[in-house]
Amino acid sequence: MVAVGDELLLGDIVNGNAAWLGAQLAAVGAPVVHSSMVGDTVERIATAVRRALEDADVVVITGGLGPTSDDLTREAVAQVAGVGLVRSPTIEQELRAKFAAYGVDMPQAVLKQADVPEGAAPLDNPVGTAPGLRIEVGGALVFAMPGPPHELTAVFAVASAELRTLSGGVGLTRTLHCAGTGESAVAEVVERTVTVPEGVDLAYLAGGGVVRVRLTTVAPSEADADAVLAPLLDALADALGSAVFGRDDDSLPGVVVARLLAAGSTVAVAESLTAGLVGAALTEVPGSSAVFRGGLQVYATDLKAGLAGVPQAVLDAHGAVSPQTAAALAEGVRSRLGATYGLALTGVAGPDEQEGHPPGTLHLAVAGPGGTRTRSVRLPGDRARVRLLAVTSALDLLRRTLP
Amino acid sequence: MVAVGDELLLGDIVNGNAAWLGAQLAAVGAPVVHSSMVGDTVERIATAVRRALEDADVVVITGGLGPTSDDLTREAVAQVAGVGLVRSPTIEQELRAKFAAYGVDMPQAVLKQADVPEGAAPLDNPVGTAPGLRIEVGGALVFAMPGPPHELTAVFAVASAELRTLSGGVGLTRTLHCAGTGESAVAEVVERTVTVPEGVDLAYLAGGGVVRVRLTTVAPSEADADAVLAPLLDALADALGSAVFGRDDDSLPGVVVARLLAAGSTVAVAESLTAGLVGAALTEVPGSSAVFRGGLQVYATDLKAGLAGVPQAVLDAHGAVSPQTAAALAEGVRSRLGATYGLALTGVAGPDEQEGHPPGTLHLAVAGPGGTRTRSVRLPGDRARVRLLAVTSALDLLRRTLP
Repeated sequence: MVAVGDELLLGDIVNGNAAWLGAQLAAVGAPVVHSSMVGDTVERIATAVRRALEDADVVVITGGLGPTSDDLTREAVAQVAGVGLVRSPTIEQELRAKFAAYGVDMPQAVLKQADVPEGAAPLDNPVGTAPGLRIEVGGALVFAMPGPPHELTAVFAVASAELRTLSGGVGLTRTLHCAGTGESAVAEVVERTVTVPEGVDLAYLAGGGVVRVRLTTVAPSEADADAVLAPLLDALADALGSAVFGRDDDSLPGVVVARLLAAGSTVAVAESLTAGLVGAALTEVPGSSAVFRGGLQVYATDLKAGLAGVPQAVLDAHGAVSPQTAAALAEGVRSRLGATYGLALTGVAGPDEQEGHPPGTLHLAVAGPGGTRTRSVRLPGDRARVRLLAVTSALDLLRRTLP
Repeated sequence: MVAVGDELLLGDIVNGNAAWLGAQLAAVGAPVVHSSMVGDTVERIATAVRRALEDADVVVITGGLGPTSDDLTREAVAQVAGVGLVRSPTIEQELRAKFAAYGVDMPQAVLKQADVPEGAAPLDNPVGTAPGLRIEVGGALVFAMPGPPHELTAVFAVASAELRTLSGGVGLTRTLHCAGTGESAVAEVVERTVTVPEGVDLAYLAGGGVVRVRLTTVAPSEADADAVLAPLLDALADALGSAVFGRDDDSLPGVVVARLLAAGSTVAVAESLTAGLVGAALTEVPGSSAVFRGGLQVYATDLKAGLAGVPQAVLDAHGAVSPQTAAALAEGVRSRLGATYGLALTGVAGPDEQEGHPPGTLHLAVAGPGGTRTRSVRLPGDRARVRLLAVTSALDLLRRTLP
């Protein structure tokens, strides 16, 4: 892989594309052996691509396909392939049509995105202007992909399909997702439950309060691969019990939405320190409008009473950051927004203390037909991390409460 | 830079170290020209380091210094330098002492962390066990650093100090942040306003509805560098006008919070399609509690009337997705939450249409002491992208409304 962009070398942005692509390529049986980041000059891009062609049969380049003078991937690929750039009338027409559809004037500079190294095939970009490119160089295959992640995702699908066919092997990944348990505890259960056979890779991925157990293998077909992985996964899920909230492509918000839907239930949220992150997470899930009523961002303390109906007596007796206030918030938002469940969070994100409570303090509550349950935890990390972990903790409490 | 680790190539983790190091190295006048990620084999690490030595005077390796059989950076560096590994009694003693201090038995495997390529100097690691390494190869300098980010931060300080002295130069970056204008349009203005002098690098970074214009140069001192960059930046800011919301480390939420604070004003939000993302963005900013009252996540249509006080007549006449409803939401949340400004969003994230409006439809409104203004746009992209761009558009409208 070759990622192009000065901003990567200067540290303006993190190379998230490399991580995404690395996983994608491993899954189609074409694991990455080397990955580079280079700056926006034809010479450096060309050097990196040439070196990549020494190492591998397939080279995937990301970035440098934009319309500005910094965008030099097309030129570099042409140089490596020993060909010139040709202006494609078809692509030019498509570019003009794209701008027209949005009612925006097309700047002249965009026309360079219609240039194609001679012999290269353009790959359609339905979510941006720059087409991807596919070109054979010697016996190897070079793909040039757009840098913006949402465009990369859209354009890479075509390359991915071709690579899967070429590799003749299928990589399969099966994953268990756990919440509410730490990585070491999960590892302990895993290690006493299964012996990982030859050819299967087991990895733990931890982040944002979620611990994932990932099994990978390569086999001639997906069915062969799953015959190896499925029994291992089932054994682990059994041993890990209620810590497991989902498998494979499941997400915690997705699982919560699916279970609310199955129960014909709705939820409303009352958020203080997270100020909207929980509602945002739930509504990332398509179809969440059937289960998510809405919520109250009760950031200022007085709004906990004014908006969510927390009795002033509770605030006076226990303060804004307490399990009692969390419970009252959950019951209040459940009632005022007419939801089956109310989910509430109150706590201290930091860096300052609040009412004598240290950063990381979190009180959660779920109010439902069966009553109200609360949970109090102390979260590690800085402000951003505390808020992120609070979202996971809240959604996990709701998940564990749902039938 | 060479980052070592299979997990990087498989996409298990993102190479955050490269971004951090890239910024650090640019700041000491030693900008990165090439960055690699390779797997855990001596051959691949050595190849990457040799290639890096063709490109640069300084090579920084991260990872592969741990105690396991996968940790092969010491071996690879020794190979490249054409020397053997020597067990250092001093480091061995320090390792034993570190484990003793924690009352933990030292596994035998840890002893390999006392191996040093002949001629290399160890660099102290106060927060982990593996020392870093510094070795001269030919006329170039090779540093090997631990992979875990908190260890890298601690050990790199020594290397950083040496590099600053060697480079005789300081790298400075100045950035303009723009919103409400596309990348091509910004580039057009930039290109007709300034000619970029030799030694100054200009780059465009676009994402999430924000376009950044970044200028970089290296000079003997920061003052010298700023003497070159500041006039360019000022000229560009002048030409780009109200599109510019900030410079350097500014963020759009940060600028909005700072301006509300300066005006002694507060804001409350009414969010439909974004369901909390705007509140979350504002409260990422430390100190936002002085200006952010809270908000209403009015996801379900009935809540726009019930919670935010949108008159039923407005909903009946214009529907939930309209400028009139946006205006009523902004006025309603301003009043009900007792804020100086109300900021409201209503629209269609997709993938489905709503009330006949296509995905990407967005109506914004800001209600304030001077009245209510609305703005309607059509956003591109999928559900996630529409929501992300909606947040930027809303914050930008608020920014442009504030005094």
